[in-house]
Amino acid sequence: MDATEFRRRGKEMVDLIADYLENIEQRPVYPDVEPGYLRSLIPEEAPEESETYEDVVKDIERVIMPGVTHWHSPYFYAYFPTANSFPAMLADMLSGAIGCIGFSWAASPACTELETVMMDWLGKMLKLPEDFIAGTHGQGGGVIQGTASEATLVALLAARSRAVRMILASDPQRPETGITSKLVAYSSDQFCATLGTTPSCAFDHITELGPICNAEKIWMHIDAAYAGSSFICPEFRPLLNGIEFADSFNFNPHKWLLVNFDCSTMWVRKRSDLIGAFKMDPLYLKHDHQESGLVTDYRHWQIPLGRRFRSLKMWFVFRMYGLKGLQDYIRKHVELAKEFESLVRADQRFEISADVVLGLVCFRLKGSNEVNETLLKRINNGRKIHLVPCQLSGQFVLRFAVCARTTESRHIREAWRLITQLAEEVMQELPH
Amino acid sequence: MDATEFRRRGKEMVDLIADYLENIEQRPVYPDVEPGYLRSLIPEEAPEESETYEDVVKDIERVIMPGVTHWHSPYFYAYFPTANSFPAMLADMLSGAIGCIGFSWAASPACTELETVMMDWLGKMLKLPEDFIAGTHGQGGGVIQGTASEATLVALLAARSRAVRMILASDPQRPETGITSKLVAYSSDQFCATLGTTPSCAFDHITELGPICNAEKIWMHIDAAYAGSSFICPEFRPLLNGIEFADSFNFNPHKWLLVNFDCSTMWVRKRSDLIGAFKMDPLYLKHDHQESGLVTDYRHWQIPLGRRFRSLKMWFVFRMYGLKGLQDYIRKHVELAKEFESLVRADQRFEISADVVLGLVCFRLKGSNEVNETLLKRINNGRKIHLVPCQLSGQFVLRFAVCARTTESRHIREAWRLITQLAEEVMQELPH
Repeated sequence: MDATEFRRRGKEMVDLIADYLENIEQRPVYPDVEPGYLRSLIPEEAPEESETYEDVVKDIERVIMPGVTHWHSPYFYAYFPTANSFPAMLADMLSGAIGCIGFSWAASPACTELETVMMDWLGKMLKLPEDFIAGTHGQGGGVIQGTASEATLVALLAARSRAVRMILASDPQRPETGITSKLVAYSSDQFCATLGTTPSCAFDHITELGPICNAEKIWMHIDAAYAGSSFICPEFRPLLNGIEFADSFNFNPHKWLLVNFDCSTMWVRKRSDLIGAFKMDPLYLKHDHQESGLVTDYRHWQIPLGRRFRSLKMWFVFRMYGLKGLQDYIRKHVELAKEFESLVRADQRFEISADVVLGLVCFRLKGSNEVNETLLKRINNGRKIHLVPCQLSGQFVLRFAVCARTTESRHIREAWRLITQLAEEVMQELPH
Repeated sequence: MDATEFRRRGKEMVDLIADYLENIEQRPVYPDVEPGYLRSLIPEEAPEESETYEDVVKDIERVIMPGVTHWHSPYFYAYFPTANSFPAMLADMLSGAIGCIGFSWAASPACTELETVMMDWLGKMLKLPEDFIAGTHGQGGGVIQGTASEATLVALLAARSRAVRMILASDPQRPETGITSKLVAYSSDQFCATLGTTPSCAFDHITELGPICNAEKIWMHIDAAYAGSSFICPEFRPLLNGIEFADSFNFNPHKWLLVNFDCSTMWVRKRSDLIGAFKMDPLYLKHDHQESGLVTDYRHWQIPLGRRFRSLKMWFVFRMYGLKGLQDYIRKHVELAKEFESLVRADQRFEISADVVLGLVCFRLKGSNEVNETLLKRINNGRKIHLVPCQLSGQFVLRFAVCARTTESRHIREAWRLITQLAEEVMQELPH
């Protein structure tokens, strides 16, 4: 395929995507396939000769779509949201075409510099302490990681490296293996300090944890993967109080801030803490500016060496929504969750299982775990809406997360109608 | 931006991309900017109100392009290639629109199943031993990682986990920390067993290393990040001999197989070795099929939890090029490298510094490191072509890697003309 054909096929793909997203709620949100369904639909080996684009594109509906869980359907209420917006998709097309690998400043200065400035923009939207902003006299800054898991691992490795350096500074003769085997990482059953846990969107008391960590020289990493996006709204920003005690912090704009996956934003108070843990400098990656102290080489901030031009997505989204547009988006999701909460609370057969702080509602039928498990199974087998469960204090609980960009009040009410209808069936059949 | 505006803007972006790639060789391959150039070109904070798409798109040429190193210019010969093809870009657009997060089979069955089958397709193209193919009675299979660094880390963690289990099996009372601090990882200065090192594309003798690893029950991981793509050609497949001793193997189709970044393909001989190291099973990720043994939940195979629908890129590329088209592509790059090698060998002032096996030529002026460092600086300051150096046995060496999809003989000859012209200048100025 040459550029001329790409002009034609690319435009067809744009229409295919717009059609898919405009009509997504007509599709069953959860697929009706059995494990192994796909293998029998396509050949066992790659073709020897090239096929045409028509051959490939017609297989999207035949092979792929029957097995897709439609995360962007307004009837998708499972897990947590994953972001999807048109500005982010346009930026990602451009990122793919430029296709640079930004492991060093010189490998593509724009890729590194836009990332640093976008991390500052976002840090300022969250009103992070100045220490975390690169464009100040502080020693911190931000980096885009792939996922929160990677950010947490990077924080853990940097913490270990800092702890070893601290101990070696006071006792230089001590063997390093003897140190690392004695280090302790403190966590809850959700790991590190978490703002908005996955099961129930619960919040750790970081204003209590923080001073202890600081006094004991324990690295404090705060993960707000889902909830972090909401901190751009002044009314939710108090949830982040205590950030001033943290050594590192991350959340996922690819969850709830309209920046398509992957984009997990991480800030550190001291750049040198990260770079000390990961530095690698072969000759083929050296460049004139790296000793000047003026440039950032992001390969020292992460596990991978290669990296995409992901800040373009942030730039397009922040500018085309504006801070107000992003705040409106967060508030709308929280309102929809509150609307669902009210519907649940108005029905005596149900109970709310955890505080509804943001866009997640944890609820259940009053009664046994069994009756709730059966209800959830019926809901998902209907394929009209999709939810997943969690376990809270031994209880089987249903999670209702407002996820899609296009979810409206009518979808929430339709979902509740379906849930109550199935609940009636289940309650007639089962003791509860 | 709604779907209607996306139809218009998406088509404009398709044209912008086609224009960029069709005219890329008119641009200086290496940017002429100083560190910090970008920050002054854009505001210090995100806008409160939304901006128009026109505002954003006109800043691509003003803000971004002056700082881009053009990896897909036919005059880019630095590092190693990063893939860029139209079928991969089309697939990536679709992947962004579907926007599912494939951490479990149920989270989007098509995402998991296409990946498993594409990894089989690619494994068969490489003629991997059947053990590594999922659609057989073997215990292995493939997974797409983000980068070779992540694949190596995953292999290392899986190896550690297996070693600990082996030792505990014979001595169950032994404390685990006492075991891990005694484990040893063997590597060269390029790490693990490598086929095609980054500095010079050198090959480890895996037919010698393999039997020792197997006899000593050492996990053998083979990294062929760049070279791996060439193994789809029968004439280069012998370079992979010894793979039968490996526990895990990876290479990067996002380097040299026309699948845009990120796509690092990794195979393991025993799925259970990986899953044992990474398993995580909270209730909100459980699904009906996971205990059946029929499905793959890829979150157990990697560091991140979330993952994109990356196998679509492989599917589009393999079908639209066909195996023969991909082989032709590899062979063309190797021929271009051989052409460059001949030009170097025909000039008495230069020498070839390492065997030219694939698409990389390591060469230098006969003489001091200083004269070669000066030559490279002149080359890159000219911004017409871009190369990076490496160090081989204490010598400063220039690396010439055939990178872009559109590189032709005329670009190679033009590059050589420039290099020899600058070499003459340098040799007149400096003792050598």
